[in-house]
Amino acid sequence: MKRRQILAAAGVGLAATALAGCNKETETAAKPEGTASTEKFNWKMVTSWPKNFPGVGVGAENFAKRVNEMSDGRLTVKVYAAGELVPALEVFDAVSRGTAEMGHGAPYYWKGKVPAAQFFCALPFGPNAQEMNAWLHRGGGMELWEEVYKPFGVLPMACGATGVQTAGWFNKEIKSVDDFNGLKMRTPGLGGEVLTKMGGTVVNMPAGEIFTALQTGAIDATEWIGPYNDLALGLHKAAKYYYTPGWQEPNVTFELDVNLKAWETLPDDLKAIVRSAARAVNGDMLDDYNAKNMEAMEQLREQGVEVRRLPDEVLARLREVAAEVVDASAAADPVASKVWEQQSAYLNRLYEYAELNEKDIYNIRG
Amino acid sequence: MKRRQILAAAGVGLAATALAGCNKETETAAKPEGTASTEKFNWKMVTSWPKNFPGVGVGAENFAKRVNEMSDGRLTVKVYAAGELVPALEVFDAVSRGTAEMGHGAPYYWKGKVPAAQFFCALPFGPNAQEMNAWLHRGGGMELWEEVYKPFGVLPMACGATGVQTAGWFNKEIKSVDDFNGLKMRTPGLGGEVLTKMGGTVVNMPAGEIFTALQTGAIDATEWIGPYNDLALGLHKAAKYYYTPGWQEPNVTFELDVNLKAWETLPDDLKAIVRSAARAVNGDMLDDYNAKNMEAMEQLREQGVEVRRLPDEVLARLREVAAEVVDASAAADPVASKVWEQQSAYLNRLYEYAELNEKDIYNIRG
Repeated sequence: MKRRQILAAAGVGLAATALAGCNKETETAAKPEGTASTEKFNWKMVTSWPKNFPGVGVGAENFAKRVNEMSDGRLTVKVYAAGELVPALEVFDAVSRGTAEMGHGAPYYWKGKVPAAQFFCALPFGPNAQEMNAWLHRGGGMELWEEVYKPFGVLPMACGATGVQTAGWFNKEIKSVDDFNGLKMRTPGLGGEVLTKMGGTVVNMPAGEIFTALQTGAIDATEWIGPYNDLALGLHKAAKYYYTPGWQEPNVTFELDVNLKAWETLPDDLKAIVRSAARAVNGDMLDDYNAKNMEAMEQLREQGVEVRRLPDEVLARLREVAAEVVDASAAADPVASKVWEQQSAYLNRLYEYAELNEKDIYNIRG
Repeated sequence: MKRRQILAAAGVGLAATALAGCNKETETAAKPEGTASTEKFNWKMVTSWPKNFPGVGVGAENFAKRVNEMSDGRLTVKVYAAGELVPALEVFDAVSRGTAEMGHGAPYYWKGKVPAAQFFCALPFGPNAQEMNAWLHRGGGMELWEEVYKPFGVLPMACGATGVQTAGWFNKEIKSVDDFNGLKMRTPGLGGEVLTKMGGTVVNMPAGEIFTALQTGAIDATEWIGPYNDLALGLHKAAKYYYTPGWQEPNVTFELDVNLKAWETLPDDLKAIVRSAARAVNGDMLDDYNAKNMEAMEQLREQGVEVRRLPDEVLARLREVAAEVVDASAAADPVASKVWEQQSAYLNRLYEYAELNEKDIYNIRG
């Protein structure tokens, strides 16, 4: 209740949402006692991912498979790659309008429409996957997320995570903060705002153009995701250095979107199936990334990639700038502001506790 | 295939398993076209946990709830607390014999019968939750686990994790390795073997006796789980110091057991439901522990608990001894030996990669 009051006070109105065009076939045979509902639902899930995109694309397909199998075909989810029905960055809109009953994407892709969405996704020097999941599922995060999306007629669920990313591919060495002056780098979102404040120039482009831009020197550097996806894009063949750690994205959490009107037509067992499928994939995708990133890093090293660590003084400065950028981003929007206030307080408590255990477990390995 | 040959070479035979007494009611109405299967299954799940035990006990109940809801009551799982049907440490046996179709416990509880089980559970200076999950779900761990349990007629699934634990409650300060000489401590399993080699004395007892034993000085120290469960047991009222980090258990992974004969009677959709419910709880229980341990530690500090860190030289010696103990434990059993060989190789690769990203993300927080 309190959160609704907060959001109402922040001026969030309830926009009317057109009835989603639910694609539903009803087997209207009389329901004998003890027989499960025979109503069938054929749903579309639009995604931000190319077909079979390693990690997150495969994870979205896995979600659909789990739902199809668990529902014995009563809820079939057909997955669409980016661009097949709608472009990658229009997944949220498509679900909101009812063009598709479901969507899968990265929350920060629609931060232009929903500035608070970034906070459920990824923050520079922000939460890692475990911390984001603890805040979402026990710290009040999911409740806030649902409230933020409700006016758009969308129900969100956490459905996948990348784990810690890498800082990117560079053709210039980074030895001090001065090396950011004039650095042309492809890096979107809040990471890009940090780069700009450090004196660099953000150059954005679709994924398919990054390799050539690096090769020709149109950009000096790019970040992408992590070893697993970066290897698939071949970026190591166009850049000299691979920098760690992924300060700009210690994790990216992905969202499953469900059109709220469509959601309400589902019987309880199918709702339960969607929820558990999303949670299963939320964990399974992270396992996939943790394993495959490790294996891909080994392959990159075997191919001669020079892995470097950003200097401490650079990281310290990036951390200061990132804190300013995140605070400013939250302050620019009343809803984001209220989310960040609650989230940052909770995360700081998790970070403090992590010093004693999660972090120390790594320290004691010798 | 290779793993089967390895296990066969190690002398693991296929024991006959009595047909499980599946409690199954069949609504034998003719199945009209498009109607889902009406067969109902009423299963028992015995657990190692007291009723409503924080974290893992509640998680086991959550698993049953998910299955009941997703199956619309076609597979009802009734949860039994420890001692209601069978004692805590006999859960695996009960499922193996078919006394219950399902079980939930900690794998190392039956290491006497299945020495390899420890390796799917917890190891001193071993994997944290993310690393265990990556090995299990992408590194070949689950396949090995299924092979190890198959001769007993049991199908295992990872179903919950504690995350990093704490080193325990002490009424004596630990300033150097000498302070382990003569230390009487309640600490089971491999952690207990390490304590013995460090010069201490292992004293084991049921949970309900620990508080008094600490208070009277019958024991100088105990480890239990972490702040969340420890606070519930009131151990802070009987001990002066709370030591970190939980070197003896950087994580405990819990298992769902399913009687293999009962499993084969399930239609595919119910099998899929059980699998996704287990994966959902595998993640949700960890979120619960991560959040609640943080909150409980705050409460403990507010109550004046003195949190201490074990000295570096002590941790270094514990690490050496732990490596010997784990290797010896594996070497004592051919099946455990084969599991540890594959597991340790994979984990070492994960540990090395973690230095670059997971660990470094904590370092750069300043």
